[in-house]
Amino acid sequence: MNLKSRIDEIPDFPKKGILFRDISPLLRDPSALSLVIDEFTKIIHPNDVDVFAGIESRGFPLACALALKYNKGMIMIRKQGKLPGVTHKTTYNIEYGSATMEIQTNAIKKGQKVYICDDLLATGGTAKAAANLVEKIGGNVAGFAFIIELTDLKGSKSIKGYKYNSLVKY
Amino acid sequence: MNLKSRIDEIPDFPKKGILFRDISPLLRDPSALSLVIDEFTKIIHPNDVDVFAGIESRGFPLACALALKYNKGMIMIRKQGKLPGVTHKTTYNIEYGSATMEIQTNAIKKGQKVYICDDLLATGGTAKAAANLVEKIGGNVAGFAFIIELTDLKGSKSIKGYKYNSLVKY
Repeated sequence: MNLKSRIDEIPDFPKKGILFRDISPLLRDPSALSLVIDEFTKIIHPNDVDVFAGIESRGFPLACALALKYNKGMIMIRKQGKLPGVTHKTTYNIEYGSATMEIQTNAIKKGQKVYICDDLLATGGTAKAAANLVEKIGGNVAGFAFIIELTDLKGSKSIKGYKYNSLVKY
Repeated sequence: MNLKSRIDEIPDFPKKGILFRDISPLLRDPSALSLVIDEFTKIIHPNDVDVFAGIESRGFPLACALALKYNKGMIMIRKQGKLPGVTHKTTYNIEYGSATMEIQTNAIKKGQKVYICDDLLATGGTAKAAANLVEKIGGNVAGFAFIIELTDLKGSKSIKGYKYNSLVKY
């Protein structure tokens, strides 16, 4: 199966001039969903990961599915104000302005290997911010798993030095 | 294992007077996460479900994990403005004011059996709104799966007539 056939292209979303890549058709197709998980299990060695981190919110399904597949835990990296308890925050630049993400300080035990999951790698700003949060609370970033990569935006440069994989490239 | 031991109680979140039940410790504990999925597989018969719907965003991990376990698809019910393409919306009352949720109109084929997943059943307003959306686009609500139920809030009344299960009751 060509996973690209399960990704919709929606023009002018969330704003004019942006071509949005929508993983909804992939998630609702059992074969495509299984294939995504199978592909990552070929890439990620069980010894290289202790926990899967999902970036809110389209990273949550992938992170939880992989966590169960590997019999590991899942943690959430969320937008500001969504996580209870004691958190670490980081603010990073996005296309217009800035955004803040948080992680619970007790989400990871010191030295745990964390695989960061999201649906899409664009400029890599969010991915790098997520890595900063994981490291700030004592975790080691074992790698990144993305379903989609928009290669023109050169997000891989933002996360240079880290292992990363994407299944569908545009 | 007592799943309650994997749920944190955080006072005054997201606002004063609310005791927040946090599933983060459960998600990051591989045994607890597996147990949740195993418990639901005892409850949900494969013939009774075609697709799992996750309510944004803490419903996404559960919905995706169950989708993979059952070899079914997963769909997302999201807050206003987050889903691209053609959507149906519904506005419902929350504690103070109202909220709007959306579903893509092509998320479900007519007559598909949809299991709606969320981390928590409180007043049931969100759950009922999700059911309305599923039915609006031609789906049948096969049931609800919640990790937590706050029984004092009588959310089960809001979804009366539907099958529902919760694993941890307060």
